[in-house]
Amino acid sequence: MAAPEFKIPRPHLGEPYLLTPGPLTTSYVVKQAMLRDWGSWDDDFRGMTRELRARLLDLLGAGKEAFDCVPMQGSGTFSVEAMLGSFIPRNGKVLVLANGAYGKRTAQTLEYLGRAHVVLDKGDYLPPRGAEVAKILADDPAITHVVAIHCETSSGILNPVEEISEVTYAAGRKLLIDSMSAFGAIELKVADIRYEALVSSANKCIEGVPGFGFIIARKTELEAAKGNSHSLSLDVHAQWAHMNKTEQWRFTPPTHVVAAFLVALRAHEAEGGVAGRGARYTRNRDVMVAGMRDLGFETLLKDRWLSPIIVTFFCPSDDNFAFDRFYELMKDKGFIIYPGKLTVVDSFRVGCIGQMDEHVMRQVVAAAKEALAEMGVANAAPPARALEERAILAA
Amino acid sequence: MAAPEFKIPRPHLGEPYLLTPGPLTTSYVVKQAMLRDWGSWDDDFRGMTRELRARLLDLLGAGKEAFDCVPMQGSGTFSVEAMLGSFIPRNGKVLVLANGAYGKRTAQTLEYLGRAHVVLDKGDYLPPRGAEVAKILADDPAITHVVAIHCETSSGILNPVEEISEVTYAAGRKLLIDSMSAFGAIELKVADIRYEALVSSANKCIEGVPGFGFIIARKTELEAAKGNSHSLSLDVHAQWAHMNKTEQWRFTPPTHVVAAFLVALRAHEAEGGVAGRGARYTRNRDVMVAGMRDLGFETLLKDRWLSPIIVTFFCPSDDNFAFDRFYELMKDKGFIIYPGKLTVVDSFRVGCIGQMDEHVMRQVVAAAKEALAEMGVANAAPPARALEERAILAA
Repeated sequence: MAAPEFKIPRPHLGEPYLLTPGPLTTSYVVKQAMLRDWGSWDDDFRGMTRELRARLLDLLGAGKEAFDCVPMQGSGTFSVEAMLGSFIPRNGKVLVLANGAYGKRTAQTLEYLGRAHVVLDKGDYLPPRGAEVAKILADDPAITHVVAIHCETSSGILNPVEEISEVTYAAGRKLLIDSMSAFGAIELKVADIRYEALVSSANKCIEGVPGFGFIIARKTELEAAKGNSHSLSLDVHAQWAHMNKTEQWRFTPPTHVVAAFLVALRAHEAEGGVAGRGARYTRNRDVMVAGMRDLGFETLLKDRWLSPIIVTFFCPSDDNFAFDRFYELMKDKGFIIYPGKLTVVDSFRVGCIGQMDEHVMRQVVAAAKEALAEMGVANAAPPARALEERAILAA
Repeated sequence: MAAPEFKIPRPHLGEPYLLTPGPLTTSYVVKQAMLRDWGSWDDDFRGMTRELRARLLDLLGAGKEAFDCVPMQGSGTFSVEAMLGSFIPRNGKVLVLANGAYGKRTAQTLEYLGRAHVVLDKGDYLPPRGAEVAKILADDPAITHVVAIHCETSSGILNPVEEISEVTYAAGRKLLIDSMSAFGAIELKVADIRYEALVSSANKCIEGVPGFGFIIARKTELEAAKGNSHSLSLDVHAQWAHMNKTEQWRFTPPTHVVAAFLVALRAHEAEGGVAGRGARYTRNRDVMVAGMRDLGFETLLKDRWLSPIIVTFFCPSDDNFAFDRFYELMKDKGFIIYPGKLTVVDSFRVGCIGQMDEHVMRQVVAAAKEALAEMGVANAAPPARALEERAILAA
C-alpha cells in the first residue's frame, strides 16, 4: 500500500498555507476548540488555565520547579514588554543583543520604559557571540541584564543562546530570552541553559492561534518583580499573584484562543514534544532550502545559522522578477509567503513552522518554480552585489 | 402556526448560557468564522481590519468623520490603559468618576502611569451627577480631563454620561468614556453627546469573542497623542498611524477573533444596530427582573439606574441559601451566573447581554425558582440590613 501523500491534513476549504512566522497554519481540531463559549470565572475555564500553565512549564524539563508560567493577553510583543518592564529594575541597565527587527524593538521598548540600555548591533548576517558579549560586560559593570533574541525572524538567524548564557552568568549578570518564534521547537531546558525568564506566544511553534503570549520565569524573579511594572495591564507579578490565588486571569482572557491552545499543546506532546516538533520543522527547512537552491535562489545566511523556523532568500536579479507578482502567484497556488525585512537588499521569507510537512514543502518549491516560469524568470540567482555583501558582512 | 419558542438559537452542544458581562454567549456563526487561518500581512486580512474600523465608526452616526477607530490587542482593560496613557498628557490631571470596581481600576491605572488624579467615589448605589461634577471642576482648575464609566458592571448602574459631558465641556475640560460593557447597545452618537474618546471591547454588546478592544477617538486627539504613551504596545497614536499607513496592526493581531468580530458586526447591523440591540437587552432585563422580583429577590439599584447590561441582586437572607450551591444548581440547569463585586452586602449578578432573548430570560427565572426550592429557600428576600443600607445609601 502506498504511503499517503500527506501525513498532515491539508488546510480546510482550500485556504492557503501560511508560510509565515505566525500566525501560521493550525490544525482544524485546534480551531474547532473555538466553537464554544466559556465563562472566564467558571471552574471549567480555571482548569483550562491550570493545564495550560502546567503543560508549558513541562517543556522546561528537570528543574522546572524553580519556574512558573504566566500567560499574558495581547500579541507576543505585549509579553516581551511585560517581561522587560517587570524584571528589569528601574535602576537596571540592559545589554540588548540585536541582529534584526526584534532586537531593535527590544531597544525601542526600553526607550519607552526609560530603562538604561546599550545595543550590540550585529546587522543581518551574524549572531552575537559569547566572546564579544563577555567583553562588553567586563567593560561595563553597570549592566545588570542581557536580553537575547533566540530566533531573529527578520533574517531567520538562530542565535547561540547557550554561549551567551554562559558568559552572562560568568560575569554575574542575568539573561532574559525572547524565544517568541523558537520556543516549543528548539529546546530551552533548565538543565542545559541558564536564564531568568523567557517569553513566547500562542501562535508560534506550539501551533495555536494568536491572542496571548506567556512568560516563563524563575519564581525568585517573579517575586522580586512586585512594583516594577510601568503598566497595570502588563504587570507580570500582579498577573502571577492573582493567577496563583484565584486560577483566573486578572482581566478578561481570550477564552476561545486559550481553548484552542490547549488542543495544540496536547498535539505538541503527541508529536514528541520539543524534539519531535523541532525535527519536523528541520526537515521542512532542509527540503525547502535544497529545492529553492536548485532553482537558483540563495539564502541570506550560511547554513550554520539557518533556523528551522523561517528562511530568508535574496530576490532574484532577473528584471522580470517582481516580489508583489511573485507573492500573488504563490498565493494563487495556495501558499502565502512573507516579505523580507532587510534594509539593504531585496529579500523574502519562507516559514517552516505550522501544520506542514516535507511533502508540503516540496509543493512550495514546485509552486515557486512555476511562478518563476510564469514571470519569465529563467534563473533565481540574486544580484552579484547581494552575494558580495554577504561575503563581506557574513565573514 | 405557533410562534417558535426561540428566535435566537440555543447554544451548541448543550453548553450553558453565559449570563455574565462578557465573555458572553455568542452565535454559532460568529464562532464558525474562526475555522480558518489568516495571514496578518495578507491583503485579505487588511480588508477585514478596514471593514472592522469602518463599521465601528458607523455606530457614531452623523459627525463620525471627526473620529477614527483604533483596535488594540488584549482585554478591554488594555484598551482603557491605552486610552488613558495616550490621551492624558503627562502634566494633565484627571477627575475619575467612580461608583464601583471599574472606576477604581481607572484610578489604579493612573497610579501606574503617574498621572495626577482625584476620584469622586459614589459608592455602589448612586451615579455621579452633573451638578457635583461641575462643582469639582470649578473648584480645581488644574483638572484637564474627566473619565466616566458608562455602565459600571460591578453594580450594573448606568451612569448619566450626557449630563456629565455637558458640565465637563461647559467648564472647558475634556471627557473620556469607558463604555466597555455598553457600547453597541446604548447610543453614544456624536450628535447627542460630546467626548474625545471612548473605549470598548470585542466581547461585549457587539457579541464577539474576547481578544481585543478598540478606542474610538477624535482625530485631533489621536494626532496630539504622539509621544504620550508610557508603553510601546499600548501606544494608541503609534497603532493608529501604522494602521492608516499600512492597514495592518503594528503587532500580531488576534486574526481569528477579528474574523469572528466581523460576523458579529454584520449581525449587529441586521438586528437594527444600537437601537435594535439595546431594545432586545432592555426586554431581557425587564422580563428577568420582573420574574426575579416575583421570587422575592431585590435589586441593588432603583429602576431608574438599572442598566440593560447586567443586574445585581442581593443574596437571600434565608439560612439555606449559599451562593456557591446556587451557582452550581444554576449551572446544572444551563445558566452560568456571575458573583457579586460589592464589599458590604452579599450579592450576585445576572447579565442581559449576549445571544439570548426574553424566552431565555424566562427560563433563567424558572431555573432560579427551581434552585431555590432545591436549596429549601422559601423566599428570596434579602436581609433587612441590605434594604436598610439601600434606603440610606441610595437616597
